[in-house]
Amino acid sequence: MTGPRIDLVYRLRVAPEQSAQRAQLLAVEQSIEMPPEAVGDARVIDEVLARVERVESLADGTSLARLQLACETVCDDAGQLMNMLFGNCSLQPDVELVDIDVPPSLAQAFGGPNLGSEGMRRLTGVFGRPLTCSALKPIGSTVAQMAGLCRTFAQAGIDVVKDDHGWANQRSAPFAERVAACQREVREANAASGRRTVYAPSLYGTLVQMQRQIELARTHGVGAFLVAPLICGVATFNAVKREHPDLAFIAHPAFGGAGRIAPPLLLGKLFRLFGADATIFPNHGGRFAYPAEVCQDIARNSRAPWHSLRAALPVPAGGMSVERVPEIRREYGVDTMLLIGGSLLIARERLAERSRAFVDAVAAADEVLA
Amino acid sequence: MTGPRIDLVYRLRVAPEQSAQRAQLLAVEQSIEMPPEAVGDARVIDEVLARVERVESLADGTSLARLQLACETVCDDAGQLMNMLFGNCSLQPDVELVDIDVPPSLAQAFGGPNLGSEGMRRLTGVFGRPLTCSALKPIGSTVAQMAGLCRTFAQAGIDVVKDDHGWANQRSAPFAERVAACQREVREANAASGRRTVYAPSLYGTLVQMQRQIELARTHGVGAFLVAPLICGVATFNAVKREHPDLAFIAHPAFGGAGRIAPPLLLGKLFRLFGADATIFPNHGGRFAYPAEVCQDIARNSRAPWHSLRAALPVPAGGMSVERVPEIRREYGVDTMLLIGGSLLIARERLAERSRAFVDAVAAADEVLA
Repeated sequence: MTGPRIDLVYRLRVAPEQSAQRAQLLAVEQSIEMPPEAVGDARVIDEVLARVERVESLADGTSLARLQLACETVCDDAGQLMNMLFGNCSLQPDVELVDIDVPPSLAQAFGGPNLGSEGMRRLTGVFGRPLTCSALKPIGSTVAQMAGLCRTFAQAGIDVVKDDHGWANQRSAPFAERVAACQREVREANAASGRRTVYAPSLYGTLVQMQRQIELARTHGVGAFLVAPLICGVATFNAVKREHPDLAFIAHPAFGGAGRIAPPLLLGKLFRLFGADATIFPNHGGRFAYPAEVCQDIARNSRAPWHSLRAALPVPAGGMSVERVPEIRREYGVDTMLLIGGSLLIARERLAERSRAFVDAVAAADEVLA
Repeated sequence: MTGPRIDLVYRLRVAPEQSAQRAQLLAVEQSIEMPPEAVGDARVIDEVLARVERVESLADGTSLARLQLACETVCDDAGQLMNMLFGNCSLQPDVELVDIDVPPSLAQAFGGPNLGSEGMRRLTGVFGRPLTCSALKPIGSTVAQMAGLCRTFAQAGIDVVKDDHGWANQRSAPFAERVAACQREVREANAASGRRTVYAPSLYGTLVQMQRQIELARTHGVGAFLVAPLICGVATFNAVKREHPDLAFIAHPAFGGAGRIAPPLLLGKLFRLFGADATIFPNHGGRFAYPAEVCQDIARNSRAPWHSLRAALPVPAGGMSVERVPEIRREYGVDTMLLIGGSLLIARERLAERSRAFVDAVAAADEVLA
């Protein structure tokens, strides 16, 4: 294989003595998808057929297979990368995609975060402490209810107020009216407080629809968006990001599965590669079952040096509470955004107070650590 | 819940005594995503919160939970439907999505197949027997090699010749050149034979890219396309289909996973709902592990009466061979398209002969049954 290539690690759940053959079948499946002996073109065998570099048996009975895939199969298209990494073999239950690395040319083609964690800090004016984030819930609310939540969160000093990921264009609060009202509340609260709370509406549909949503939201001054890359397709996410290099994109893990693609790869690396400035993931101890070390690996992959890509802000979420702020702060460090949603809303008429308690807890956690 | 609603069936892998509570948490997760006691708006609880209709324990220790979801959460958007069905709970390993039904309004909004199996017959001129299909492989081939395969398959009388799903815009055979050359070969072979072999190139990227690909392919007379809805995003697939009501779309299962969404639902129902005229699925006994009854359920869901949606042609594939034609024909009946790829190509210089053997085997299977 002479051209640039992608390094892949798969976990194989087969008997150790079958792992070498299984890895070879996988290399065929994820590249030429036909018997190599039927290929007449020597170049295809030499340069396009994926190559098994190494297979190692692990103590738990599974094996790790390291493969190399030719970059020419991917065409700098994010969807096509997913197709080559895990298209057909996603249908085979004995394979998991554990990790990848890409050559600098591919990292540059996808481009990574527009703003990254540093840019998220400039956008919000927050330095030296984790950012705070909450969500506008529930779907079915009216525009007035959403706007009221926005005002309360912004007045309490929460840095990022995002639509819940279930918001699309529901008739109770259509995108156009919702975005206008929510952004107005945030703008007015910012004018009064001198802070820079950011409102991030949720994008939905196709690239063409998202282009219209962004155009409309920009007229109100919106500078950040929530997007679920596995719902809209990663090619659409990457295209939206590249078309709008001044905007921030917060990636939501919806439809990400429970581990067939290892979450540190999917949410930590791939979302960042395709353009997540911040990556929401289900923290341990909440409503989701990711172990603590998986969550830490997501955060590590979001921030570790990787080609020239900006770092993404990890956003532990999914059933967090104000009481857990010190623990989350200790675990994930300062370059983090803490997202608390339902656990604030449950305070109902004391939402403002509870939101300020969240903001104060983040500040206090840093004072304790300082 | 007063408005139109979606019926959902989930399988819960929890202890039977926990299943009722787990179902209630799931209803919250997939609708309002916050504690119901924190919701101040009674309408949201009455009309938007998903409702648990029934939970039954099965002999295998799992439970089936039947839920209802308000249609207003979905906004007639295919991506948003996937989000509401399996967005967050895809991250929870104890849940599988088994089945859904949608109200007529939603079926009409998505629209189902443009042509359906009857339209695929009109397009190819094939009546009274299964259709035959093969694939242009491997990626890395040149345009001349692809065109040569196209000619051989078309001359042998194969009804549909599709790009392998790994084709995007690789430099060895860029989309524009590949489509022009392949369609020309098929057109010339058809002119000589009087048959109507159809060439289906593979779409990739975003809606905007697909619009350009279709526009270009149309200038050459292409009338059918291959698309992987879970790679491009189902909203993009549905939009492409609706923008081009005269075209046929063959759906590929890449990135479909190995069962977290039951394949009869995902490939049989949802792909059809969003617009698959034909649905490729991994047949049992090939390179994939779907049991025979799952495959039969995919075919059944593709064809069963469902609202006013056209039937989709089921396409058993994934390591099939000429020798298995009689068995596949008996199993799936006449309204089927048989797809054999690598097992034809392995004949190499005898590809034409092997392709004719495939065509003859399909014809012979019907004579035996007649």
